[in-house]
Amino acid sequence: MSKMRAAIFVEPGRIVLDEKPIPEIGPLDALVRISTTTICGTDIHILKGEYPVARGLTIGHEPVGTIEKLGSAVQGYREGQRVIAGAITPSGHSAACLCGAHSQDGAGTKHGWKAVGGWRFGNTIDGCQAEYVRVPDAMVNLAPVPDGLTDEQVLMCPDIMSTGFSAAERGKVRIGDTVAIFAQGPIGLCATAGAKLSGASTIIGVDRLPERLNMARKLGADHVVDFSKVDAIEEIMRLTDGRGVDVAIEALGTQGTFEACLRVLRPGGTLSSLGVYSSDLKIPLDAFAAGLGDHTIVTTLCPGGKERMRRLLSVVQSGRIDLQRMVTHRFKLDDIEAAYDLFSHQRDGVLKVAITP
Amino acid sequence: MSKMRAAIFVEPGRIVLDEKPIPEIGPLDALVRISTTTICGTDIHILKGEYPVARGLTIGHEPVGTIEKLGSAVQGYREGQRVIAGAITPSGHSAACLCGAHSQDGAGTKHGWKAVGGWRFGNTIDGCQAEYVRVPDAMVNLAPVPDGLTDEQVLMCPDIMSTGFSAAERGKVRIGDTVAIFAQGPIGLCATAGAKLSGASTIIGVDRLPERLNMARKLGADHVVDFSKVDAIEEIMRLTDGRGVDVAIEALGTQGTFEACLRVLRPGGTLSSLGVYSSDLKIPLDAFAAGLGDHTIVTTLCPGGKERMRRLLSVVQSGRIDLQRMVTHRFKLDDIEAAYDLFSHQRDGVLKVAITP
Amino acid sequence: MSKMRAAIFVEPGRIVLDEKPIPEIGPLDALVRISTTTICGTDIHILKGEYPVARGLTIGHEPVGTIEKLGSAVQGYREGQRVIAGAITPSGHSAACLCGAHSQDGAGTKHGWKAVGGWRFGNTIDGCQAEYVRVPDAMVNLAPVPDGLTDEQVLMCPDIMSTGFSAAERGKVRIGDTVAIFAQGPIGLCATAGAKLSGASTIIGVDRLPERLNMARKLGADHVVDFSKVDAIEEIMRLTDGRGVDVAIEALGTQGTFEACLRVLRPGGTLSSLGVYSSDLKIPLDAFAAGLGDHTIVTTLCPGGKERMRRLLSVVQSGRIDLQRMVTHRFKLDDIEAAYDLFSHQRDGVLKVAITP
Amino acid sequence: MSKMRAAIFVEPGRIVLDEKPIPEIGPLDALVRISTTTICGTDIHILKGEYPVARGLTIGHEPVGTIEKLGSAVQGYREGQRVIAGAITPSGHSAACLCGAHSQDGAGTKHGWKAVGGWRFGNTIDGCQAEYVRVPDAMVNLAPVPDGLTDEQVLMCPDIMSTGFSAAERGKVRIGDTVAIFAQGPIGLCATAGAKLSGASTIIGVDRLPERLNMARKLGADHVVDFSKVDAIEEIMRLTDGRGVDVAIEALGTQGTFEACLRVLRPGGTLSSLGVYSSDLKIPLDAFAAGLGDHTIVTTLCPGGKERMRRLLSVVQSGRIDLQRMVTHRFKLDDIEAAYDLFSHQRDGVLKVAITP
Repeated sequence: MSKMRAAIFVEPGRIVLDEKPIPEIGPLDALVRISTTTICGTDIHILKGEYPVARGLTIGHEPVGTIEKLGSAVQGYREGQRVIAGAITPSGHSAACLCGAHSQDGAGTKHGWKAVGGWRFGNTIDGCQAEYVRVPDAMVNLAPVPDGLTDEQVLMCPDIMSTGFSAAERGKVRIGDTVAIFAQGPIGLCATAGAKLSGASTIIGVDRLPERLNMARKLGADHVVDFSKVDAIEEIMRLTDGRGVDVAIEALGTQGTFEACLRVLRPGGTLSSLGVYSSDLKIPLDAFAAGLGDHTIVTTLCPGGKERMRRLLSVVQSGRIDLQRMVTHRFKLDDIEAAYDLFSHQRDGVLKVAITP
Repeated sequence: MSKMRAAIFVEPGRIVLDEKPIPEIGPLDALVRISTTTICGTDIHILKGEYPVARGLTIGHEPVGTIEKLGSAVQGYREGQRVIAGAITPSGHSAACLCGAHSQDGAGTKHGWKAVGGWRFGNTIDGCQAEYVRVPDAMVNLAPVPDGLTDEQVLMCPDIMSTGFSAAERGKVRIGDTVAIFAQGPIGLCATAGAKLSGASTIIGVDRLPERLNMARKLGADHVVDFSKVDAIEEIMRLTDGRGVDVAIEALGTQGTFEACLRVLRPGGTLSSLGVYSSDLKIPLDAFAAGLGDHTIVTTLCPGGKERMRRLLSVVQSGRIDLQRMVTHRFKLDDIEAAYDLFSHQRDGVLKVAITP
Repeated sequence: MSKMRAAIFVEPGRIVLDEKPIPEIGPLDALVRISTTTICGTDIHILKGEYPVARGLTIGHEPVGTIEKLGSAVQGYREGQRVIAGAITPSGHSAACLCGAHSQDGAGTKHGWKAVGGWRFGNTIDGCQAEYVRVPDAMVNLAPVPDGLTDEQVLMCPDIMSTGFSAAERGKVRIGDTVAIFAQGPIGLCATAGAKLSGASTIIGVDRLPERLNMARKLGADHVVDFSKVDAIEEIMRLTDGRGVDVAIEALGTQGTFEACLRVLRPGGTLSSLGVYSSDLKIPLDAFAAGLGDHTIVTTLCPGGKERMRRLLSVVQSGRIDLQRMVTHRFKLDDIEAAYDLFSHQRDGVLKVAITP
Repeated sequence: MSKMRAAIFVEPGRIVLDEKPIPEIGPLDALVRISTTTICGTDIHILKGEYPVARGLTIGHEPVGTIEKLGSAVQGYREGQRVIAGAITPSGHSAACLCGAHSQDGAGTKHGWKAVGGWRFGNTIDGCQAEYVRVPDAMVNLAPVPDGLTDEQVLMCPDIMSTGFSAAERGKVRIGDTVAIFAQGPIGLCATAGAKLSGASTIIGVDRLPERLNMARKLGADHVVDFSKVDAIEEIMRLTDGRGVDVAIEALGTQGTFEACLRVLRPGGTLSSLGVYSSDLKIPLDAFAAGLGDHTIVTTLCPGGKERMRRLLSVVQSGRIDLQRMVTHRFKLDDIEAAYDLFSHQRDGVLKVAITP
């Protein structure tokens, strides 16, 4: 049985590079040889023990690579093909999937719904920070990479591009909207780009790091607000001349940003939440108009599946936006522990790292 | 200047019947002679001083009556016509109205949005618990009552029918859904009826008063849950065989019911909130899947305007549902103080009272 | 190799009962022993040679039965379980499926879209008018029948109930709508029931056969129009007092009914088309307001998949509507040729036949 | 009574500049002094007698100007303010308006719906190719022009920008879609821009005039197809690798373009039609999958009202797109007959003309 290197969760505080057997595949699976992957903020939650996964699990959910081997029942692909798969790998046959809620895939459960059930890579099955990964339900999940696109150009598709765009989509951002995005980390930056692509005419990005605010401008923000220098709520109300925003996007996962979103919304507006929260949330009575403000709050987990990937790849291919510029640092898989160190401490203006086996 | 009787807010704890001048009308208004009106739970909030209104204001926002006089610019109506108007009387020309958000009508404000701005009767202008009421923007708000319908048959249209149905509409209840409605007061009962009309195949009503649970069954509940006898969340999970509900409707305005809604929702489900809350709300982290459950939370203020009223009247006329049975008590306007006393203390199994000048 | 009886398309004009091998199944399939099935209007098109299928194909796409055998990769079911499957059996993994357009499933095609591709039973693979049927992609398609429901109670779920309801769903029928349904055959009757379940307050059914108009009343029509006695368009305009309808449903597949739908629509209304047409359609300029009327035209092929079936089964189980009464005649599979004869000539007031092996 | 100059429809073939009284205004109206207006393709239909209007009517429906006088009941504006109004001027109070279908405004009719009823300027009331225009229902229709925008920058908002964008909006173009737009006249060019703003990743513009195809590229087309040189349907299928498009936009009003839209649509796709047709349309059976392809056809009349204008102005202000470049020729109002001559014959590569009194 051949071996490969993989980044493995050992215990809170420790993700290490180690050897594991190359995965075996079932009839509906594919084995993908990873050419590039990355580290996500969620992986840092795992590293810190804030999000529990099994010890020994391979981490990572953003695969770019090449088909090494196809399961016996998989049709429509060929070995050697360059592919990506989404961070979320739905089964395609659960009730959730058949309702279009692939991220809440409950395949194998009694009723077919399971909260966050579609997230398997690096969560409930071995992930992508390795030389190889087993992709389950390959016919649902593998998306060919168009010729001419580099690994780094498509590296954001599996997770942050899909997640960030979904904030605008679920928030129903439309032509002429005013949108505020709280936090301009990788997800928030992609939400900013998604709002731009959806036709918002006034986009306001909030953060405190200059390099992130700078990147926000490049990706679509008309205004940026440094919340370390001004009161973000007041500033947004000033920028909108007192009107507030149509859609407020939460891209951090804290009470402060959640609440700020509500406070800058116009009546009838939508709070589109992407953050992974770590404590109960409070909805302030006044910002909620006591429940009479026709508000909408939506939360979204990264949409996955090969068709989602195909659409995102087509956006990259069209040149509409360039997310490759978010790759600020590059590491070999052998040096992934250093990459975790850099990324988890947000050093050197890091936005995203590219990891190559 | 002629006088009329009207129920007037004097101070917290006191709504009294008094004399006032019959309202004068402007070019876009209508004067309506009230034939039947009612008392709403919101009026009790006003009575108790929990919702502030100006002293001297006439209370009430559910008018059934006859056009006494039309403003000079009003076309399409005739004096003597039987009409209703919604509890919410939008202007038709604000930005909010032009976006379809009539309840958040901001006519006269800088940007055209104002939280709860569409609610004027008995809130910001004199209301309907009187012999006459001035209906602003009459061409937007007056809906003729079809021949053959009695006052009591249409009495629920202006507020609780419109509000209750909107829970199902905004929650996007559709054929085959499972829906739970927390609290079966007048609004919750109408939400139950609205879920039935929207095609829900499993409807679960929650309350503790037997007469309300009984009425819930009549209006569409397949199951009723007495939360004073069983744990409502457990019971709903049992009734749904562990699946949870597609849409949970909050019809009371408390933390307990709000939170219970989240706890019985399947992943990807919708919490449709009607309640008027009186304190901050808490979203429990677990029930919210840490923000990753693809949840939707919507709040709705009673939809108004003549077209909304026309549609509701057509539902009454079709015999699809009978909300007249919710009228449990009848009073003359002269006795409205006694009606307030009964209604505010929920005595005698009261659901709704009919008040006739 | 065991044999079974099956209704086989021989040539235009001839569907005969013959012997065939019991189907073999692959890893994702299930073998279902049919306990009840039926004949659809589409089968008559096949019989007449108007819709081409391969010679030797087993006809029929409405299976009720018991799982005889499960493919090696199928999980979540057990042999002996009572199940139905939809007339449309999507793969779950095509681009179309991942977009929620399961009926246009293009599994195996280059881009994953294929017009009418989800319809396989009795079209591109052997169907259900037989003792056994192979159900492909069993985990996507098999829906357990709740205890206590008879075969005939659930017999309409696979096709006509799903199709009929979809007219209301795709037409976005909502509370208070006025809806006209042209033709009250089995599909049109189910569309009538679907409009009722969706909250339409005025439903107008059009046909000429008294038993169908009678059934239309039972299933939800407030008014019925016998087009052999009155001009249907004029009558609908009279019934709606000149307003026209919000949604017009075409349930026959002819130019006359399609055009009549457009002519009774109010501006901004929706034509929801279910019919299988056999020639080009004409859109009259005047009825289309020269393209400026904000009209919507939608066509829908029967939605399938196990979750759709589960939802429809829950409607049956709730007792909301009773479609069993549409079963007017019963035949043994051995007598299916007689059943075809009766059904194709619409004799004896036949609506639907139940066929039992 | 003061006089002004105005372009008046005399008879088919003749629109002439003449003198008329400056309009008088009612309590809800505003008098606007026109600073810039333009000629629309629809005006050419009127000129040719293809679209009938009353003799003596002032033509034109695209006003940019300054408030000269406000009706007695108009609030929220001031004289001297720079404003635009939409080509469509809804009343705000009809049933159609209250349903969000402002273009089908039936104010004054029995039921409140009237096909194309929202179009009044230069159709049922005097229009804008004059020194002054009366704007009805001013509070619904007047939108202030943000400081810093020139007349020509906002000149497309009232009609072609609103109409063109609506094709993408009603067609529900979303991130990653493939869209084809048939005809790249002013409306089609704006539809191209609208598809871009809505996130389409592959946009294909079809026309035969090089200057229009060139402009299409500037406004968002990734590919342009000259139908005089290649078969447009074949070319679009080639460009999409056989997949077809998600949304096809018709922007001309002919059978050929309408039919081509259907032929390039993938199953489940949407035909979004803007064209003003002049004869019955044919839907080919094959392109329509016999009614089983889950197709959607939507038609849209230019959305109007001040909130629509505000949103479009915000898009202009944001610099997202520059439609001013479509102004290819400029005329004084005194020379409007020459402008009609140029525009109606599409000479000199004309796209839009600016007319200044």
